[in-house]
Amino acid sequence: MSILRIGRIELRVLDLKESVDYYTRFMGLTETGRDDNSVYLKAWDEYDHHSLVLTEADSPGVDHVAFKVRYAEDLEDLNQRINEWGLSTEWLAAGSRLAEGEALVTTLPTGHRCEFYHQIERVGIAVGNTNPEPWPDDLQGVGVQRFDHCLLVGNDLEGATRFFVEVLDFHQSERLITADGTMLATFLHCTNKAHDIAFLKGPDTKLHHVGFYVGTWDNVLKAADLQSRHGVRTELTPSRHGLTRGLTTYFFDPSGNRNETYSGGTFPYYDDEVVTWTEDQAGKAIFFHGREMIETFGEVFT
Amino acid sequence: MSILRIGRIELRVLDLKESVDYYTRFMGLTETGRDDNSVYLKAWDEYDHHSLVLTEADSPGVDHVAFKVRYAEDLEDLNQRINEWGLSTEWLAAGSRLAEGEALVTTLPTGHRCEFYHQIERVGIAVGNTNPEPWPDDLQGVGVQRFDHCLLVGNDLEGATRFFVEVLDFHQSERLITADGTMLATFLHCTNKAHDIAFLKGPDTKLHHVGFYVGTWDNVLKAADLQSRHGVRTELTPSRHGLTRGLTTYFFDPSGNRNETYSGGTFPYYDDEVVTWTEDQAGKAIFFHGREMIETFGEVFT
Amino acid sequence: MSILRIGRIELRVLDLKESVDYYTRFMGLTETGRDDNSVYLKAWDEYDHHSLVLTEADSPGVDHVAFKVRYAEDLEDLNQRINEWGLSTEWLAAGSRLAEGEALVTTLPTGHRCEFYHQIERVGIAVGNTNPEPWPDDLQGVGVQRFDHCLLVGNDLEGATRFFVEVLDFHQSERLITADGTMLATFLHCTNKAHDIAFLKGPDTKLHHVGFYVGTWDNVLKAADLQSRHGVRTELTPSRHGLTRGLTTYFFDPSGNRNETYSGGTFPYYDDEVVTWTEDQAGKAIFFHGREMIETFGEVFT
Amino acid sequence: MSILRIGRIELRVLDLKESVDYYTRFMGLTETGRDDNSVYLKAWDEYDHHSLVLTEADSPGVDHVAFKVRYAEDLEDLNQRINEWGLSTEWLAAGSRLAEGEALVTTLPTGHRCEFYHQIERVGIAVGNTNPEPWPDDLQGVGVQRFDHCLLVGNDLEGATRFFVEVLDFHQSERLITADGTMLATFLHCTNKAHDIAFLKGPDTKLHHVGFYVGTWDNVLKAADLQSRHGVRTELTPSRHGLTRGLTTYFFDPSGNRNETYSGGTFPYYDDEVVTWTEDQAGKAIFFHGREMIETFGEVFT
Repeated sequence: MSILRIGRIELRVLDLKESVDYYTRFMGLTETGRDDNSVYLKAWDEYDHHSLVLTEADSPGVDHVAFKVRYAEDLEDLNQRINEWGLSTEWLAAGSRLAEGEALVTTLPTGHRCEFYHQIERVGIAVGNTNPEPWPDDLQGVGVQRFDHCLLVGNDLEGATRFFVEVLDFHQSERLITADGTMLATFLHCTNKAHDIAFLKGPDTKLHHVGFYVGTWDNVLKAADLQSRHGVRTELTPSRHGLTRGLTTYFFDPSGNRNETYSGGTFPYYDDEVVTWTEDQAGKAIFFHGREMIETFGEVFT
Repeated sequence: MSILRIGRIELRVLDLKESVDYYTRFMGLTETGRDDNSVYLKAWDEYDHHSLVLTEADSPGVDHVAFKVRYAEDLEDLNQRINEWGLSTEWLAAGSRLAEGEALVTTLPTGHRCEFYHQIERVGIAVGNTNPEPWPDDLQGVGVQRFDHCLLVGNDLEGATRFFVEVLDFHQSERLITADGTMLATFLHCTNKAHDIAFLKGPDTKLHHVGFYVGTWDNVLKAADLQSRHGVRTELTPSRHGLTRGLTTYFFDPSGNRNETYSGGTFPYYDDEVVTWTEDQAGKAIFFHGREMIETFGEVFT
Repeated sequence: MSILRIGRIELRVLDLKESVDYYTRFMGLTETGRDDNSVYLKAWDEYDHHSLVLTEADSPGVDHVAFKVRYAEDLEDLNQRINEWGLSTEWLAAGSRLAEGEALVTTLPTGHRCEFYHQIERVGIAVGNTNPEPWPDDLQGVGVQRFDHCLLVGNDLEGATRFFVEVLDFHQSERLITADGTMLATFLHCTNKAHDIAFLKGPDTKLHHVGFYVGTWDNVLKAADLQSRHGVRTELTPSRHGLTRGLTTYFFDPSGNRNETYSGGTFPYYDDEVVTWTEDQAGKAIFFHGREMIETFGEVFT
Repeated sequence: MSILRIGRIELRVLDLKESVDYYTRFMGLTETGRDDNSVYLKAWDEYDHHSLVLTEADSPGVDHVAFKVRYAEDLEDLNQRINEWGLSTEWLAAGSRLAEGEALVTTLPTGHRCEFYHQIERVGIAVGNTNPEPWPDDLQGVGVQRFDHCLLVGNDLEGATRFFVEVLDFHQSERLITADGTMLATFLHCTNKAHDIAFLKGPDTKLHHVGFYVGTWDNVLKAADLQSRHGVRTELTPSRHGLTRGLTTYFFDPSGNRNETYSGGTFPYYDDEVVTWTEDQAGKAIFFHGREMIETFGEVFT
């Protein structure tokens, strides 16, 4: 059983039109389809039909995250493993969303809806597959390269970590712990990204941020310049995380969902030892340059 | 069965002392041990005891490449799969080299000795695992971050590709083909690197280059500046590959083995479609900026 | 009469030994001499004997700034012009400080001691003048390239601007003004730097910061990483100024004098029109990414 | 008498339409006007009406270079100095070209037509002068920031150097000399650029290249990527010059006039000592990374 990556995230947004405008013109995603309630988007370097789904709702936040499995038959295997581990599952029929096949659905120990899927329509990368240019020439705004990861908020980080490691065969790259070993943050990957998904200690079912990959420190600067130009509410100006070594900015979409531009993080292998950050160094762990907690970081969730 | 990565390469060098000096002081690797014939080195961001072995010999070239498997029991499984595919194997006893456990050995369709192993002593990354800095403060020279990949030369690229895909479950990220579909180059990965190993059409058993990861385009410039300062024989000044999108320089170690500093390539997933380059665009595929074949690229092998 | 550049700044520091350690090992300057009270330092890409003088004192701050004139005879001409403009002057004899010739001394409308000089011993740049490498191979810490500019604090910014423009033939590159046109900040250059000297509205005789040039946005990141590693008190993590477009970090030397690593600013010519920032955009003018005033910026002076 | 900078260059091009398309869509300049024979262009960060004039002709090359003086009255002073030095001059009436005032014309010791001017219409920088963004959001192609310098070819480099130093008060930043001291290349500046104008030993009246400033090493990569994408004939892929430390690519406009994207060079002051490169290191001086002369560099002039 093998999970390829975190494949998509569905966000609740307050005003669909405004949100689509933000994610396409400012972030540089491409709209690939829409149905009654939702708009589907992909980044230029992604093959699948969508990695971000925006759905209008009364409050912002995350509707679900979903992981793509390598083979169709992985889903049935996964269903059994999840049930054996003690979580219940259900099936979402193919076509429930645009361009998607069936999905296996469960609820994470942190209360988040989590799906697994194999089938999704292919659109292809913007530069094509034959003698391609290294980047497309019509990028809008920040021009993010791919949906990279998300950070969710919840209480049972030990449970979430065990679920991803034991059931889904993820590897924990890094963690932030208290003096007594309680996890305050956990970083989990099934690729060689520093994290496909991570969790922060806090109220269940919440979203901390959605991370988009931008490739370089120069592109982080470009993103920050554009955040300023377009008046995008910004929480963290260009900086490094101690955790993952990532280079980053934090800012908010029009509904208040936190976004991140991310580049330059580690490239962990499954036999790497977990990197541990201690609570007394939490400021440095998260904001390596400022070395102090930004209050909203631990308070503003959607 | 899961292969973690290309874990090491053993190079034949003409003068061991001179080579160690080059790979430590110029390239920035660390010597972690030596035995009668060989010196063992690792890069700062690697955990294992070594990723490069230098062995004195009458001619330069590659002695073997080796892939690390996730579990000890993968080796036996792998042995069976390799034999079933039609290649013979043998076992190399633990301790045959410094700090290594047993290895499974086979010969690739291109004639190269290829090993698989699980057990190797751990040294750890230079920055440690608890509240680490993002980079070490005592890097020498180029200060390469990790052994990234190698490009080998051989005739049967179709066979090599099938072996890696069918037996080892690698994925082909890119390929360069003639008009009739014959592969002139094939890029294969078991991680999300653009290539763990690649093959170029040519005489069997040869080495094209060993690629070391340097992280950024600025570090490629730093490497090129240092190549000039230290009189290192250089074949390719800072450029991009069309294949893999990688940013790169090519140069030669004192024995004539080609080295590469590499950064910025693609991050392929297993469900990505193969990127195809056509022979008429071979110059652009390999030297994206110069768009013409550098003669020595296809002629100088060790 | 032509002024070549701001040539040096003398800082008061609380603990000379600790300060020298900071400016050499952390900032990467080289000590070129010392006398009874002071230590003299230069950056690697500067020819003259020193650009920074550290003098032990009971309180931090700036002792004086000094501008180098092109010809010895410029000093006498300058003396007359300054006196005619209404400021008094005096002469400081050659040898009053190490390696320096005579200096002409005046007091700026903002109360700062300001010197003009021509003669100073030459040490030369670290890479030499014959077939030089592009950068030295033994840089310490941040490895700043040159003393770039300083920002002083004072009340009469109109007077200071007129003095520099009318008497010293500087050009104003940028300014921050209130709705009624009062200057809150003024940027003045005699080179093609965005500023050789600038002034911020506030109490007379104070220092806001000393700016050191680091060349690239990647070097700003390196500086920020090192600030964190070495526990250097940091006020501004990597960011851009709207004013001058500069890329920057702010932090404090052990005495509390603010330092800046600077790169990437504008390259103004004397016929460029002044760039004007309005007070309602002051946050964005100074902290282009954060777009809010950092309180200490306008409060912490030495 | 003070010269502000090299203000414009007029190039002869074979096909005006094709050339305008290249310099606007590929290089990112803006057309600001045209008259019977010529098209006038400026870069986004320049104030004046034009810095590049394209004029259709039967052969490519440079029609003239022109330096802007600070004050109108500098021209008469300059006229006298040039005549006293032994060169004849003439006046070009205001309005002979679009948006230009009168110009003083002479012929350099290398046979090139050289003009001096003060009056030219102002267009302004693309980001405006009040609370400006750091860069414009509608850049085309390479998006060069300014016309930076040119390298001309001629025989009497000693004469040219003396003319610029003695008459125009330029400073020589660097030079390449033979063992007997004959100059093979000379770099001259009146700003803090590494060169406003430079000369290479060779046939009189020829153009080697026009240099455009692109700001960063990342932008040099972007330029090289675009050169490949658009099939622009390229001579030098991303590299460093030893001379000036500049980061660069060389390529050709549709008429065969060599262009350069340039960034990262030195920032010389008038009291800097000249940097000397010796002929035996000429390859390294010009192509710091490749360390060998590219044949066309010394052979292809227009």
